Amino acid sequence: MSSEKLLAIDIGGTKIALGIADHASFSSSGEFQRVEKFPVPELRRPELVIPVIVDRSLQLLAREHPVAVGISIGGPLDHERGVVLNFPHLPGWKDIPLASILAEAFDSPTTLDNDANLGALAEYHWGIGKGANPFLNLTISTGIGGGVILDGKLVHGVASGGGEVGHITVQTDGPLCDCGNRGCLEQMASGTHIAERARELVRERPGEGRRLLEMVDGTIEKIRAEEVLEGYRMGDALATKAWLEAAEYLAIGLGSIIHVLSPERIVLGGGVAMAGDDLITPVRERLRDHVFYIPVDCIDLQPASLGHDSALLGAATMVALEVES
Amino acid sequence: MSSEKLLAIDIGGTKIALGIADHASFSSSGEFQRVEKFPVPELRRPELVIPVIVDRSLQLLAREHPVAVGISIGGPLDHERGVVLNFPHLPGWKDIPLASILAEAFDSPTTLDNDANLGALAEYHWGIGKGANPFLNLTISTGIGGGVILDGKLVHGVASGGGEVGHITVQTDGPLCDCGNRGCLEQMASGTHIAERARELVRERPGEGRRLLEMVDGTIEKIRAEEVLEGYRMGDALATKAWLEAAEYLAIGLGSIIHVLSPERIVLGGGVAMAGDDLITPVRERLRDHVFYIPVDCIDLQPASLGHDSALLGAATMVALEVES
Repeated sequence: MSSEKLLAIDIGGTKIALGIADHASFSSSGEFQRVEKFPVPELRRPELVIPVIVDRSLQLLAREHPVAVGISIGGPLDHERGVVLNFPHLPGWKDIPLASILAEAFDSPTTLDNDANLGALAEYHWGIGKGANPFLNLTISTGIGGGVILDGKLVHGVASGGGEVGHITVQTDGPLCDCGNRGCLEQMASGTHIAERARELVRERPGEGRRLLEMVDGTIEKIRAEEVLEGYRMGDALATKAWLEAAEYLAIGLGSIIHVLSPERIVLGGGVAMAGDDLITPVRERLRDHVFYIPVDCIDLQPASLGHDSALLGAATMVALEVES
Repeated sequence: MSSEKLLAIDIGGTKIALGIADHASFSSSGEFQRVEKFPVPELRRPELVIPVIVDRSLQLLAREHPVAVGISIGGPLDHERGVVLNFPHLPGWKDIPLASILAEAFDSPTTLDNDANLGALAEYHWGIGKGANPFLNLTISTGIGGGVILDGKLVHGVASGGGEVGHITVQTDGPLCDCGNRGCLEQMASGTHIAERARELVRERPGEGRRLLEMVDGTIEKIRAEEVLEGYRMGDALATKAWLEAAEYLAIGLGSIIHVLSPERIVLGGGVAMAGDDLITPVRERLRDHVFYIPVDCIDLQPASLGHDSALLGAATMVALEVES
């Protein structure tokens, strides 16, 4: 009897998620039969983590080998060769041929893609991106990632660089990004940056941002993007400045993407986008200052409709589509 | 007997080009049987120009009605509806349903697209873009236009905004563009801007740019992009500054596009790109300051291989593909 199970694996910086789906019903339901999450094993190197992933997956599969395995991971990778080029959140995850290692372990075809691309695929098939063409999914959390879908297919481009929209230049003379470029979208509008900017403003302007400081008991270092959003909601001038600056840079970055692809729908997901309309409304407003020849109202800007497991769902969707074709 | 002729029309700001091709042989040769060019009729309004186009086309076709008509025009248009939204170079060319007017006149299916998209299509089918996926063609002349081809198809996006890459933000606090945005690629790196920037530098720095001034007999207003390039080639410091600034902004803009699409090949065409390696080399060099996670050497940056008639060739290619499918 041949296997009917799909296995999806999402490897994050702190936790790993596994999902098992029945192939036949998944294609119409987009639902997992079982999902399990566990912290990344303490010795976080690949040679120690990968065997744990295999072991727990086989337990979850009740030893049945899967018809296909889809893996999601953050950071630069080579989709075609199935190699993790560099996963900066875990030590030693550099040039790891993860797809072929897991293909051998499970004796199943195995495909690897990054979490932002797979989040886009999930929103396109099961969420608010449904049928949009072109479709862009932007994930705004500690960093900024993206996924582009055209005619129903993810755009990988050469060296799997498609959708790496966090590194679009939005502030020409801006600060150096970890990547080496200056003023990257990720550098100017990620959750990490929103928090840093608010802390900087609090230090620069003593006496201001009192509401923000009250939330963190006066400890500037404790200010996170969540507090900045809360401060913006309460009308704190300093939090508002930090929040709206990020919205402005998001609009500049989205403006540049719009002038390349003119997406029918753009979905904002990730932790920062949990702000919902408090992010969408100012970004939409600022887009009007950056996009003119293309009518902004033709482009549907929406908050993500799927939760944190969208990359896991995308990983299963990717391999379900491959098995079908 | 049914017609076997394709008619291509390229409407520019100063001249109009017509091309007649034999449908059967065009698909393998990419060659016109006859090409005719003439200045835009003096009263440049659409109701006076369109009948002249029809009349001269019918003469060229020897009254045979074409199997399909492809039209190229610069500026914003609606590809799906075949409407010229605004052709700023000619008076009154606003909201003109050009495709349906010509479809009726020729009694043939008629399709409209912009010159930058059609230039991309021509390079993809007949030039150096052949088979590249994704493929970007950038046209740098008085303005900057672009065309994106993915899986062999032009990316139009909603409201035909795909490939409008001249309006990507490359200088966040830059000067206002005609479009309303600030620091657009077109504003910072087009031929128009290169010339303006050189004139500005000559005025700001009396005593410098002597070679540049010699070329125009001391008349600053006569400096064009051609003179700036010539000055750069001769080592004039001021011309070099203006030229390399444009290369830097092109690299920033291309960097942003690369982070969306990761094109396999990028082709630079248009008047400014006639500079060949004198443009390609500094742009490629500067790209290394803006693109890191995607290996720049994977992206093939090349000068255009087709001449000024690439949009006309693209117009014929567009309708040849449609007739086939």
